[in-house]
Amino acid sequence: MALPVETFFLQPDAQGTLQSQIQQMIARGILSGRFQHGEKLPSTRKLAQHLGVSRITVTIAYTELLANDYLSSKGRSGYYVSENAPSPPAFSQAPDTQDAIDWTRAIGQRFSGGVTPRKPQDWSDYRYPFVYGQVDQSMFDHANWRLCALQALGQRDFTSMTSDYYDQDDPQLIEFILRHTLPRRGITAAPEQILITMGAQNALWLTAQVLLTQRRRAALEDPCYHALRDILVQSRCHVTPVRVDQDGLPPEAIPPDTDVIFTTPSHQCPTNATMPMSRRHRLLARAREIDALIVEDDYEFETSFLRPPSPALKSLDTEGRVIYVGSFSKSLFPGLRLGYLVGSEPFIREARALRASVLRHPPGHIQRTTSYFLSLGHYDALVRRMGSALHERRTKMEEGIAKFGLTIAGQGAHGGSSFWMRAPEGIDAKLLASRLRNRGVLIEPGQSFFGGEDKPQNFFRLGYSSIHPNRIVNGLQELAAEIEEMMPSGSIRR
Amino acid sequence: MALPVETFFLQPDAQGTLQSQIQQMIARGILSGRFQHGEKLPSTRKLAQHLGVSRITVTIAYTELLANDYLSSKGRSGYYVSENAPSPPAFSQAPDTQDAIDWTRAIGQRFSGGVTPRKPQDWSDYRYPFVYGQVDQSMFDHANWRLCALQALGQRDFTSMTSDYYDQDDPQLIEFILRHTLPRRGITAAPEQILITMGAQNALWLTAQVLLTQRRRAALEDPCYHALRDILVQSRCHVTPVRVDQDGLPPEAIPPDTDVIFTTPSHQCPTNATMPMSRRHRLLARAREIDALIVEDDYEFETSFLRPPSPALKSLDTEGRVIYVGSFSKSLFPGLRLGYLVGSEPFIREARALRASVLRHPPGHIQRTTSYFLSLGHYDALVRRMGSALHERRTKMEEGIAKFGLTIAGQGAHGGSSFWMRAPEGIDAKLLASRLRNRGVLIEPGQSFFGGEDKPQNFFRLGYSSIHPNRIVNGLQELAAEIEEMMPSGSIRR
Repeated sequence: MALPVETFFLQPDAQGTLQSQIQQMIARGILSGRFQHGEKLPSTRKLAQHLGVSRITVTIAYTELLANDYLSSKGRSGYYVSENAPSPPAFSQAPDTQDAIDWTRAIGQRFSGGVTPRKPQDWSDYRYPFVYGQVDQSMFDHANWRLCALQALGQRDFTSMTSDYYDQDDPQLIEFILRHTLPRRGITAAPEQILITMGAQNALWLTAQVLLTQRRRAALEDPCYHALRDILVQSRCHVTPVRVDQDGLPPEAIPPDTDVIFTTPSHQCPTNATMPMSRRHRLLARAREIDALIVEDDYEFETSFLRPPSPALKSLDTEGRVIYVGSFSKSLFPGLRLGYLVGSEPFIREARALRASVLRHPPGHIQRTTSYFLSLGHYDALVRRMGSALHERRTKMEEGIAKFGLTIAGQGAHGGSSFWMRAPEGIDAKLLASRLRNRGVLIEPGQSFFGGEDKPQNFFRLGYSSIHPNRIVNGLQELAAEIEEMMPSGSIRR
Repeated sequence: MALPVETFFLQPDAQGTLQSQIQQMIARGILSGRFQHGEKLPSTRKLAQHLGVSRITVTIAYTELLANDYLSSKGRSGYYVSENAPSPPAFSQAPDTQDAIDWTRAIGQRFSGGVTPRKPQDWSDYRYPFVYGQVDQSMFDHANWRLCALQALGQRDFTSMTSDYYDQDDPQLIEFILRHTLPRRGITAAPEQILITMGAQNALWLTAQVLLTQRRRAALEDPCYHALRDILVQSRCHVTPVRVDQDGLPPEAIPPDTDVIFTTPSHQCPTNATMPMSRRHRLLARAREIDALIVEDDYEFETSFLRPPSPALKSLDTEGRVIYVGSFSKSLFPGLRLGYLVGSEPFIREARALRASVLRHPPGHIQRTTSYFLSLGHYDALVRRMGSALHERRTKMEEGIAKFGLTIAGQGAHGGSSFWMRAPEGIDAKLLASRLRNRGVLIEPGQSFFGGEDKPQNFFRLGYSSIHPNRIVNGLQELAAEIEEMMPSGSIRR
């Protein structure tokens, strides 16, 4: 590749002759790794013009660099970075500025250090990746997604792709969600009651910002999605964790001074409990009684394959009390970063204004591609295919769990894509997870899902959306063997 | 299209026989516009199975609906929504829930009502759209963008598209920006010093959140980018507007208790002033003196076509004092929503943690597509082509401005894509803009760019990135005619 002339700058305060400055600039570029072996330099004429120096100055500098073997020349075709030029040190070397800022003071608000664990980026290199929320390449309908993306890249959709929508969304996507996605959950809504978000994460974040302040109280499930706890901690509201049972969040345990209740009725995260209909009605009644709002995170309803999903809590809501969070990340793919909020218009108006300030709008091209994928029926087909693939894996999981005497702590009556597990007392799931890596097994230790001081140490989550079904049983065998090894000798399990 | 069986729900608390409930459910779907003329219903067998009722119940319900002409049947091929079925009212009718929430109380923080004006979504329908920041279809390299997107949609890049990156970015894009984009601005940085954002808007927002609190002070240019003012107001810090002159922000006027200085040295927004080198050095010295950080918004450097751009302020910074905001929105297209932050590692770490909480990461597919577009050289070619197209338009603008006696208030020495204009005293630019719409002319009134109480009323911005060059002169003629009409009679300009 030719090095564009625009990347050449003389330091305004540099020492020495122009010629030596040019030499230094080029040598520095090579030594720092910016200019790589074989790359072509601008012609002497071009560089001279760009820098506002005489051409002879550049020619002399180039000749010097030739002699030093930084550059090579190929007859009339110009100058290149020599193959023999010194190699740069590793690219990530610190630049030679001295940071003089006291960042401890300069940073006004800290956001790092939350409870959300760093997940391994290289999960797919593990033999037994029981990770949650990633996608299995073999399940995804890549060909049709590609066709839809192509269609959305066409001239006809040029505006939808390139325009600044300001605070608006793709009307095609909104209409499809209103007409087809929400009705599956029993929800009717008007266009002003929906906002497209950068995934469910972004929907939860926007909701917390709009509804919560330092003087308000949020109730959330315990255990729960760790990123939600980080969001609420950052919003500085009071947070009450409410321990869930086998039916999810118990309405009676929600404190009366709660302003906003966060819940996952379809598949409680992470225990997978599905809230029965009677409890949904009681939860709504409780919210009415204490005048709280409910945020329903329906992040995983599409992977309900064992029984038809129950209607969403939002569909039972006649007062505008429920704010509904939907996501395409589980059913399409997480890298898509597309979800949505459904709620009363005054709420959506504020969430929209905040979204506009934070990021304006999710990219138009992605919204339009998704709209095609949904409306051409590929999404329905994908959800069906994923349902049967997950069903198969779940069967294998149940087989292996029974065979190796592992213990399920939660049950997903409607499917889902993970099991919530309990190791024997005394086993630290974090240590277990770290030891399992040596066996090529990835699991998610459960500690970070719990709030408060007294976190149970022996829970963990096994996702089965990304692991090949033929590896499930062997992976569970490794898991059981590791637990066995960690057990104190003389314990009941030899 | 066939209506998926999953969209059919019986209301758990509905009255009447099962058969009449099914009839009502379908009629309601048709009346509400969810089911449209000609759409196919699920077979009686499928629907019965889904609802858990007997097939004969569904058959009777369908037969009733046939008789009422809600449905039609086409022999053995099944049931369809009849072409004669009642038409739904306009789709956006309010759902029949009664909102019982006191949203004035329920909303904890308000974000609507900022100064950022709502821009017309239908700008491209106007004959003379002097709008800023939208893209001209004829300039964009649509074919190559499409090829790059296709490549990024390929199997090889599947992971980069579909994965949850958690808090990370596409390493290919990061590397390209470090090796090629930043060096053009004289900046060297390490990978840990850069964060991809959802456009410059998102970069500025993240920066404000990390650096500012209620106890800190930001200095910003006056006039300035209105969305920045909204961001700072939302962050609740103290804000000092500093009036700019023909060279941009005057360093001496920055109050000594300032913590963060926001500036646009390349093209002051909206006056287009380019800060001379000597003032850049003085600005850095002033920041050091009062121990303030500088946020350099380099939103438009790529459209510098009159002279080579000066190196960024960041390139002169040896202390980590400058945080640099870059954007691909102006040079690629605004709907892309892609920009980046460059700064010291402790700062980037916090911005990254906050971004992860707010939205995780910009979609992987978009990062990878951009990375291909950049690395295959299409971006450089596009910038060159845009430069000459903007140059041509600028010449036409200058012609027309001179010919019709309009007044430029600011000058963009290095190009840009707009003029900052001054109407005669006494002309209200908002009124002018609103009257011009009837002539098919869109301009941006300047009021919202100013802070404080005493906003000048007669400034406006003329963008020329989206208007066809052949329409420029006529558009300016309309503008001049409207100003003429608005002048009080007997004024100096007849």
